[in-house]
Amino acid sequence: MSQLWGGRFSGETDALMRKFNNSIFFDIQLWEADLDGSMAYAKGLARAEVITEEEADIIQDGLDAIRAEFVQRQFEVKSGDEDIHSAVERRLGELIGDLAGKLHTGRSRNDQVATDTRLWLKRKIEGLREQLDTLQGTMAAKAIEHLNVIMPGYTHLQQAQPVRFSHWLLSFAWMLQRDKDRLDDLTKRVDVLPLGSGALSGNPFLIDRVFLAHALGFSALSSNSMDAVSDRDYIVEFLSWAAITQLHLSRLAEDLIIYSSREFGFVELDDAYSTGSSLMPQKKNPDSLELIRGKTGRTVGSLTGLLTTLKGQPSTYNKDSQEDKEPLFDAVETLSMTLPIAAGVVRTLKVNPGRIYDSMDSLMLATELADYLVEKGMPFRDAHHLVGQIVQQAIAIDQPLFSFPLAAYQKFSDLFDRDLHERLTFNRAADRRDSIGGTSEAAVKAQLDLLRDLVDYDFDEAISDAL
Amino acid sequence: MSQLWGGRFSGETDALMRKFNNSIFFDIQLWEADLDGSMAYAKGLARAEVITEEEADIIQDGLDAIRAEFVQRQFEVKSGDEDIHSAVERRLGELIGDLAGKLHTGRSRNDQVATDTRLWLKRKIEGLREQLDTLQGTMAAKAIEHLNVIMPGYTHLQQAQPVRFSHWLLSFAWMLQRDKDRLDDLTKRVDVLPLGSGALSGNPFLIDRVFLAHALGFSALSSNSMDAVSDRDYIVEFLSWAAITQLHLSRLAEDLIIYSSREFGFVELDDAYSTGSSLMPQKKNPDSLELIRGKTGRTVGSLTGLLTTLKGQPSTYNKDSQEDKEPLFDAVETLSMTLPIAAGVVRTLKVNPGRIYDSMDSLMLATELADYLVEKGMPFRDAHHLVGQIVQQAIAIDQPLFSFPLAAYQKFSDLFDRDLHERLTFNRAADRRDSIGGTSEAAVKAQLDLLRDLVDYDFDEAISDAL
Amino acid sequence: MSQLWGGRFSGETDALMRKFNNSIFFDIQLWEADLDGSMAYAKGLARAEVITEEEADIIQDGLDAIRAEFVQRQFEVKSGDEDIHSAVERRLGELIGDLAGKLHTGRSRNDQVATDTRLWLKRKIEGLREQLDTLQGTMAAKAIEHLNVIMPGYTHLQQAQPVRFSHWLLSFAWMLQRDKDRLDDLTKRVDVLPLGSGALSGNPFLIDRVFLAHALGFSALSSNSMDAVSDRDYIVEFLSWAAITQLHLSRLAEDLIIYSSREFGFVELDDAYSTGSSLMPQKKNPDSLELIRGKTGRTVGSLTGLLTTLKGQPSTYNKDSQEDKEPLFDAVETLSMTLPIAAGVVRTLKVNPGRIYDSMDSLMLATELADYLVEKGMPFRDAHHLVGQIVQQAIAIDQPLFSFPLAAYQKFSDLFDRDLHERLTFNRAADRRDSIGGTSEAAVKAQLDLLRDLVDYDFDEAISDAL
Amino acid sequence: MSQLWGGRFSGETDALMRKFNNSIFFDIQLWEADLDGSMAYAKGLARAEVITEEEADIIQDGLDAIRAEFVQRQFEVKSGDEDIHSAVERRLGELIGDLAGKLHTGRSRNDQVATDTRLWLKRKIEGLREQLDTLQGTMAAKAIEHLNVIMPGYTHLQQAQPVRFSHWLLSFAWMLQRDKDRLDDLTKRVDVLPLGSGALSGNPFLIDRVFLAHALGFSALSSNSMDAVSDRDYIVEFLSWAAITQLHLSRLAEDLIIYSSREFGFVELDDAYSTGSSLMPQKKNPDSLELIRGKTGRTVGSLTGLLTTLKGQPSTYNKDSQEDKEPLFDAVETLSMTLPIAAGVVRTLKVNPGRIYDSMDSLMLATELADYLVEKGMPFRDAHHLVGQIVQQAIAIDQPLFSFPLAAYQKFSDLFDRDLHERLTFNRAADRRDSIGGTSEAAVKAQLDLLRDLVDYDFDEAISDAL
Repeated sequence: MSQLWGGRFSGETDALMRKFNNSIFFDIQLWEADLDGSMAYAKGLARAEVITEEEADIIQDGLDAIRAEFVQRQFEVKSGDEDIHSAVERRLGELIGDLAGKLHTGRSRNDQVATDTRLWLKRKIEGLREQLDTLQGTMAAKAIEHLNVIMPGYTHLQQAQPVRFSHWLLSFAWMLQRDKDRLDDLTKRVDVLPLGSGALSGNPFLIDRVFLAHALGFSALSSNSMDAVSDRDYIVEFLSWAAITQLHLSRLAEDLIIYSSREFGFVELDDAYSTGSSLMPQKKNPDSLELIRGKTGRTVGSLTGLLTTLKGQPSTYNKDSQEDKEPLFDAVETLSMTLPIAAGVVRTLKVNPGRIYDSMDSLMLATELADYLVEKGMPFRDAHHLVGQIVQQAIAIDQPLFSFPLAAYQKFSDLFDRDLHERLTFNRAADRRDSIGGTSEAAVKAQLDLLRDLVDYDFDEAISDAL
Repeated sequence: MSQLWGGRFSGETDALMRKFNNSIFFDIQLWEADLDGSMAYAKGLARAEVITEEEADIIQDGLDAIRAEFVQRQFEVKSGDEDIHSAVERRLGELIGDLAGKLHTGRSRNDQVATDTRLWLKRKIEGLREQLDTLQGTMAAKAIEHLNVIMPGYTHLQQAQPVRFSHWLLSFAWMLQRDKDRLDDLTKRVDVLPLGSGALSGNPFLIDRVFLAHALGFSALSSNSMDAVSDRDYIVEFLSWAAITQLHLSRLAEDLIIYSSREFGFVELDDAYSTGSSLMPQKKNPDSLELIRGKTGRTVGSLTGLLTTLKGQPSTYNKDSQEDKEPLFDAVETLSMTLPIAAGVVRTLKVNPGRIYDSMDSLMLATELADYLVEKGMPFRDAHHLVGQIVQQAIAIDQPLFSFPLAAYQKFSDLFDRDLHERLTFNRAADRRDSIGGTSEAAVKAQLDLLRDLVDYDFDEAISDAL
Repeated sequence: MSQLWGGRFSGETDALMRKFNNSIFFDIQLWEADLDGSMAYAKGLARAEVITEEEADIIQDGLDAIRAEFVQRQFEVKSGDEDIHSAVERRLGELIGDLAGKLHTGRSRNDQVATDTRLWLKRKIEGLREQLDTLQGTMAAKAIEHLNVIMPGYTHLQQAQPVRFSHWLLSFAWMLQRDKDRLDDLTKRVDVLPLGSGALSGNPFLIDRVFLAHALGFSALSSNSMDAVSDRDYIVEFLSWAAITQLHLSRLAEDLIIYSSREFGFVELDDAYSTGSSLMPQKKNPDSLELIRGKTGRTVGSLTGLLTTLKGQPSTYNKDSQEDKEPLFDAVETLSMTLPIAAGVVRTLKVNPGRIYDSMDSLMLATELADYLVEKGMPFRDAHHLVGQIVQQAIAIDQPLFSFPLAAYQKFSDLFDRDLHERLTFNRAADRRDSIGGTSEAAVKAQLDLLRDLVDYDFDEAISDAL
Repeated sequence: MSQLWGGRFSGETDALMRKFNNSIFFDIQLWEADLDGSMAYAKGLARAEVITEEEADIIQDGLDAIRAEFVQRQFEVKSGDEDIHSAVERRLGELIGDLAGKLHTGRSRNDQVATDTRLWLKRKIEGLREQLDTLQGTMAAKAIEHLNVIMPGYTHLQQAQPVRFSHWLLSFAWMLQRDKDRLDDLTKRVDVLPLGSGALSGNPFLIDRVFLAHALGFSALSSNSMDAVSDRDYIVEFLSWAAITQLHLSRLAEDLIIYSSREFGFVELDDAYSTGSSLMPQKKNPDSLELIRGKTGRTVGSLTGLLTTLKGQPSTYNKDSQEDKEPLFDAVETLSMTLPIAAGVVRTLKVNPGRIYDSMDSLMLATELADYLVEKGMPFRDAHHLVGQIVQQAIAIDQPLFSFPLAAYQKFSDLFDRDLHERLTFNRAADRRDSIGGTSEAAVKAQLDLLRDLVDYDFDEAISDAL
């Protein structure tokens, strides 16, 4: 009897049903957490005097042996194993005999799987957080490297105002900073021990849950057993985190795909992150970025899917909730790929200041004209309207704004004066944006200083590596 | 050089990028379609005199050898294989030498993968359609078996009016009938050949696309090559179909989960579709139904995910679209499980007429009272209101409606007469609903007759098997 | 008593609950369908001899009076009106007295609202179908106008092969053709009459449902009353249609937004579909296209939302389903805006052949080189690789492919010969793609001929208008 | 000229385009935040000496006058008003003349709308947080009222183990506690001032952003202007919060709908939260709960929709982002209804201890039997299997577990002894679950003590009100 629940049944499980029901093919990922959880629970049972210290030791040794099998990739899944929990219990029985049957005392798969998943996720989050730091740091280093490259700033994908390339790139570092904050916040809700909640109503063997939490490194205990066995909020919250983080990467990808088109030509992807075409010999495609952008759908789908699965379920555990793990595992795997790929793309990105400079449209100085008039006393709305007419003429005669003579400006308003033309440079326009968060050199440097405190990454080493 | 596109590149692909980019671990499913597509394309190249007939034969033999390797599970994926198309081309080269390099003439992976996926899906749809027929047929057979069991019909999960159990069960067969119709409709849009569209602009070797369509069994040709290589509508439409079909199953599951609770007790699931608890020895849980219900989230997530991936993509092929296959494969796999599991559950379901009968509330006859008054000339709205008051009293004195004496009724209205009580039976109430689609015996039999024509399933054999 | 169901209740409805429950503020849209449905039902009751012909006439007159009030925008919603059905019944009572109370005989709001919604949607679909034709026709006319403008064809937003502008634009017309097909298919499932299904179990007054269907213009009858009152498939299917159609528009928008950037400059949006900036006087933004692209999220959200709402509901009608109407109405409204806006954008679009021509990269002819070698006998894969090296050199020395002398080519392969350079033009490359669906002039004209049959729009008039 | 951007344009905006583009019909909700933001900005301009103090005062007076118009519902939207910002600026011009045109100096609608929305949301969050406290408090009070009612605890909707009604109800209070934690966490990211970011590149007038933040009550400043104008994370995060909170309510609703079915009969909804049927006079339907459950789809849809809209957008502001407000407003409105409706349902809920008691199945004591054997030394897994066989027999002979004589038990195992039967009560089973979070009386009281600290609600008053 390898099943954990056969006693009450007389009929056989349908073969397709068994396949449909089994989760071993994906939840085997939880093996380490499952062993750790069982280790702690065995100790807990001994403390509660449900088993003896000697029995606990034998169980521990058995679990250690199983751990070694996993580490050496020798653990064998057998056909009757429903899930990782049954597989481990079955194997423990093979190794230490009937005593294995004591390990489940007062514990249900309901609290066990919830514990395993939280433990697993806590550990994965650490890695993701480091990857976020690395990506931010890579961006910061690249920004420092190209600190004063001025580029067109776009709104609506139309040239709007000149900005620093570094300012543009750091805008993504700040999105990731929020992602890190969100990750820290949600970790508090992952870091809660459900073990000791039983199937739904609690543990009847006076198990010391504070001890269990301590043994497994959890900071808090669940407060209600019925909630604890069915709470999947932390997974939804993690998927929501993943979706937002992917959104940020998708926007970075979109910008870089456009900027690396022949028509823009602002940047060039390294060969390491490009692929070619099976048909067209000249193609060098930004597949890395397109996959990053495309995988946003995947994480959004995982989030939506789990929300739909959870909606309207009766309380406590229902088997529907087994559908929580694949989207979670997939999202962790996806982000674990997209974050370092994005870092690689940024780190190896070739920036083309010449192409960037050539593309800049003097009309981006229109706001400078309006601001100039404002400084001379014209209400902004009037200045805006008047400059609109100057722009119309500039387009009509196909002349850049800086090459209009003063006299031409003065036909529009006698507020224009000799100090006008020195104002009409992209650099000056950028550096005027000097309040907090602006694109002036000083303001961008201030951003970098802030990030130095927030990001665990050695900027300077990265920069010296890059040079 | 195993890559199909190395020539123009000088740098190496990053190792993680290669993993990120590769699709072989999932698109290997397409192997048969890929071989079929290449077979046809080789013939097409020969017809277009791009290669000789002898060359075509050698290519065919090579592809046949590869087919045999797949069938015998001996095909070996190598580390450089990006996807199924590269793997097959690489292997073909190993088997027949340089000639393999001619097979890709005028063909791009863009039109190739679109062709493969459509071919694969067309074949899968046939199986799903049969599974739909089987599930409908199983429902119809069960309905015939319990044709005249009267049960509470619910709205808002409150007892509403008596209905036939068969009528309730057939309501799901009609949902599935729409699913079949939708599947037929969408198949028209799957059944379109993109091969011969090249990378995006068409085929320059005068390939005969009508011949290709014929050779591969497609009914129609794509009309615009740029559309053809990027069209993923048929996948979205299929995922939408899958989501709606799962919705129907989720509602069936919800009903059966509730009906098999101890409190309802209307039906009992067979052991073959139930599982137990690792902790609670008495438990027999409807895991099959909960998984069916839960997996609805999965298909909804796949649909949402692909929609999100496709949204706002530039036209023609972008690598983002590689994200189309996993949700498609997963939805096909999911439905291929849930449909037969649902059929198994229904076929083996034990119906409990005694428990059903005991649960029926006489208040479900309230509409009968109102209709009675209507027949005697009272406007329905007044009758409704008056019966509402009778109901209030019935609840207050805790008496069923059929045991109220006539005198009690006549206190409410003198329209009540001696013919009243014969009206107040559940059977009579059900059989009065005799218009098309109603729950009367005749109307339910008429439904079954309609379904006999629409469902490819031998009802009678199924019934004799059941008895 | 304005409520339709007060009799059985003793307590008052909570005020917030009333607001929460009421749907009149959105379902008032259904007024016309509701009146039509009631008209037909009154006739049906008379045919079934539940009411007299005279009573039916009075009811009809009352309904006509209410119709006039709606038409003249004088219909007054009162505070007790839960929904459009109660409002109409309440008003009918005010106009014709107690007889109004007979109209609901055997009819429930469950079958009534399902009928109303289907009727409403059927009518809306007609308008959407016309808008699809117009948009397709507008595209076709624009394509004819610029039939032979050659532009870069992109994959991965990198220049790939030269294509006709007309071919690119028609690729969207074919997407819309599928949308039209899907709309026709789903209309079959909208066009089904649920009236006569009662609350859930059918109609007990021998109402002639075939007559009702005929009177209301429905082509089919629902076959199972329990299914009929809860079937929302047609709404999900419509929302899925809307989401796919919006996807197509989002991709058109993405292309046009990029093509109208300063860096591309291929097209310019008309002022009529652009807006400016409150701060930057020079800005002319493609807001129309961005809103089209953005509203894709809205329709995807509506689809996901309804799927989530329906998932796992018990069978027949539950109040959850009241949540079906707002997403439906919103999707109809959204598409009714985005389709004509898209048509306006296309119709007034200024195409810039000069800028397009200037942007074309000779590397797009790389496939021509490879095909040339293939024609001379080299296997395609070898040709592809060799041309990759030519491309590398062209990039290194910054020379276009057509200006390489023959001798330079012959250093790569002696298959290159005097006939090479005449092949190296964008026009020739485009016109070689001459199989069905290709970008050659003939193939594009053939596409247009096909569309002439499929699209209800006077191309020629549109073109003469445009010129 | 009512538009803010007309100067550069020569053509007219298309009429439908104007309707498509305008957001005034929904963003008018932001009026108060918009006025507050402008007030602060005017002061900021004066501090930066862009305008004089006198000018600032006149602007303030103008804004105060507009505020009064809104408060008195006399503010008139005019046909040229694109959005709330234009409307206010237009009206200000009418009131104070050209000076109004200075208010927009250095400010763009991009930073303005971001500021308004955050301010609006911060204020709404306060109300939602209070509603969460109230709902939790209502649950706690109800739990105290029925502290020791023992009911069946379900997993898989099958009776599992006895639990306290109070424990079940508090499980939802703990879900809401997480919702409150999440709300507090996300508020940190709402509470960030974007004002002073300009259109995208920062403010060139040395505006004191720290002053602005202080004036408007924001705790933090955005750090990068390009990020600041396009950051919609806080809306996605809020929608995700809303979706999770609705999920919790949907599960409460599902339980209560099932528990208030005739077959369960555990609870009865108050008339105040029920509605009737237009056709069936006896019906009393839990519409409140069904709408709560159904509206989960709505919030999930809003979340999915916005994620889809944001996916792949180029950086900084694009008009697509205008689609952020309707889902946000809708989610706030939805939760502002569902939370108090849920509280009303719980507060007025009638609990039926008799019906609950009658429904309890002795098989829920099976775990007690197994635990008993464990205490006598049998490994749990063996005990589980043996009790499974006892359960089989109990079902076969249709006898409750507590009425089996000891002898019968001893046939299964001689570990059963005289102390067995005193163990076999539901109360004893519940009270054995005494570890933290369990269902024993002491553990539930401990939960309540924890909640007293976490929930801002006067439990005792609520209880005395209830009695």
